Amino acid sequence: MKSNSDYTLIAEEGINALSFPSGDLEGLYAPVKYGVSAGGKRLRPVLCLMGCDAYCGEAERALPQAVGLELFHNFTLLHDDVMDNSDLRRGRPTVHVKWDVNTAILSGDTMLTLATQKVSECDDSMLRRVLTTFNDMALRVYEGQRLDMDFETHQTAVGLDAYMRMVGYKTGALLGAAAAIGATIGGASEKDATLFYDFGYKLGVAFQIQDDYLDVFGDAATFGKPIGGDILNGKRTFLLETAYKLGGEDAEALKRAMQLPANETKIRTVTKIYEKMGLPEICRKEINKYSSAAIKSLKKTKISEEAMDAFRSLSDRLTGRRK
Amino acid sequence: MKSNSDYTLIAEEGINALSFPSGDLEGLYAPVKYGVSAGGKRLRPVLCLMGCDAYCGEAERALPQAVGLELFHNFTLLHDDVMDNSDLRRGRPTVHVKWDVNTAILSGDTMLTLATQKVSECDDSMLRRVLTTFNDMALRVYEGQRLDMDFETHQTAVGLDAYMRMVGYKTGALLGAAAAIGATIGGASEKDATLFYDFGYKLGVAFQIQDDYLDVFGDAATFGKPIGGDILNGKRTFLLETAYKLGGEDAEALKRAMQLPANETKIRTVTKIYEKMGLPEICRKEINKYSSAAIKSLKKTKISEEAMDAFRSLSDRLTGRRK
Repeated sequence: MKSNSDYTLIAEEGINALSFPSGDLEGLYAPVKYGVSAGGKRLRPVLCLMGCDAYCGEAERALPQAVGLELFHNFTLLHDDVMDNSDLRRGRPTVHVKWDVNTAILSGDTMLTLATQKVSECDDSMLRRVLTTFNDMALRVYEGQRLDMDFETHQTAVGLDAYMRMVGYKTGALLGAAAAIGATIGGASEKDATLFYDFGYKLGVAFQIQDDYLDVFGDAATFGKPIGGDILNGKRTFLLETAYKLGGEDAEALKRAMQLPANETKIRTVTKIYEKMGLPEICRKEINKYSSAAIKSLKKTKISEEAMDAFRSLSDRLTGRRK
Repeated sequence: MKSNSDYTLIAEEGINALSFPSGDLEGLYAPVKYGVSAGGKRLRPVLCLMGCDAYCGEAERALPQAVGLELFHNFTLLHDDVMDNSDLRRGRPTVHVKWDVNTAILSGDTMLTLATQKVSECDDSMLRRVLTTFNDMALRVYEGQRLDMDFETHQTAVGLDAYMRMVGYKTGALLGAAAAIGATIGGASEKDATLFYDFGYKLGVAFQIQDDYLDVFGDAATFGKPIGGDILNGKRTFLLETAYKLGGEDAEALKRAMQLPANETKIRTVTKIYEKMGLPEICRKEINKYSSAAIKSLKKTKISEEAMDAFRSLSDRLTGRRK
């Protein structure tokens, strides 16, 4: 197995090697290139390459799939940014701001088809399995986005179970599919590929809870976003849904605090209630629960101890156990 | 071979048999169902079923692909209606009007993945060919839509060649893929499938020229849309681009007429210039040229005379040679 930065580098090179038609079709493909070249952790391709490496010792064999999964991820960001009316992504104007909404819709569609093409660049004997995992995952992601949009219209709690399902669909499914597709390309059995899916899915849920936690209790410098954004926007998070589920006086105070005008006072008030209710400890426990369950799934596969260590290290880094 | 209405019936039944998750995911799938159940000629599924029937005598074998192609077609309509800001489609409110723009985007994405799933429901031995044809076609369609959008910003002619390319991408590619995928499922060789693609592509171009022609010279009752819509909207059409290409005094008069306010006078003035320039005859010739070329492609395949007759009859009906 390689180091995390090696996998990121392989993914980055694969993405840079993508070539698109130019000339009078540049209006369609330039936003695709712009969207996918924004950098970031490249977590999905890394998971895919690692899954492949763990089975055949040759990470690059799954490079088309890794690139395809990153294209898919960026397609969802492109359309989500239109739906959420977000102007910035990773410090750059979003596609619908730099170009326009119609371009974001059409070039997003193009990215989805390009993603399907890249993911399908495998041996014919594996095509059915890879494609099925990919398309099933895509539907889960849309379902997660729909649930998330529907949650916005709820005035009170949507329920912790519903929240966990949404997060699993929206974030877990793609990480799961990335790991499973990589493993499949590497030669994993269907049983092992399913265990890789479970690993990625649970890791994705742990990662999202961590993200919710850091949005309140993180360090602005390392988190990369202003602290308290979720509170200001009244966003459904693991913390909010858990607090409502715990109920009692504190939850009532929280409901009132969530009605405050969106300013620093609201952030301070809500954060204090979260602390009083013990949310930091609950978050830590839940993150550990999901990341442990993720690793447990992997232990049932046939991969080497060295590979296990690499996945454990990735999981620890993603869920904040190790920098 | 069966009658055209039999193929339409098979397609319609296949579409009605689609089942979608309900409950809290209805917000995602109800618009998909709404979009695909609007009726219409079902031309793409019919072509697909006919292609299959011509090779194996069992049209239903390509039913999943026929349904998938109709899902794809309706996905493009859903997103196009957002981009064109169209409120009505086949007499019903469009999805972004009945629901909202975000729903149209997300349920459109869902339709594209569902389309890919349905098209992939074939024997593993055919999956690669079917999927490649489908994805290549999808990119052509987006490219056509992009060219069409870019044409809107041109104040003068875009050129007849550019127009024909756009029409081929936007309409021809999907009819071509429908015919080719059906033939492939039926057992056609790669060579025959390519000839079926050519047939559908050229038929699509003929059909679009016919549509441009009827928009000016058709009968409102049978055309289904008000006559003169393209003139009112200043839309690029085969007639407009051909007239500009012919040039001379009439073309100059046409340019001026296209600047008139969008009313009946504009329609009458432009129509008269088209007549004076001989556009009805030019259209008829060009439609015949493309539909003859389409049939010529089919003649190079190994299908029976009976099958040839069925395709000839479809082509004649679509291009107005026979009601």
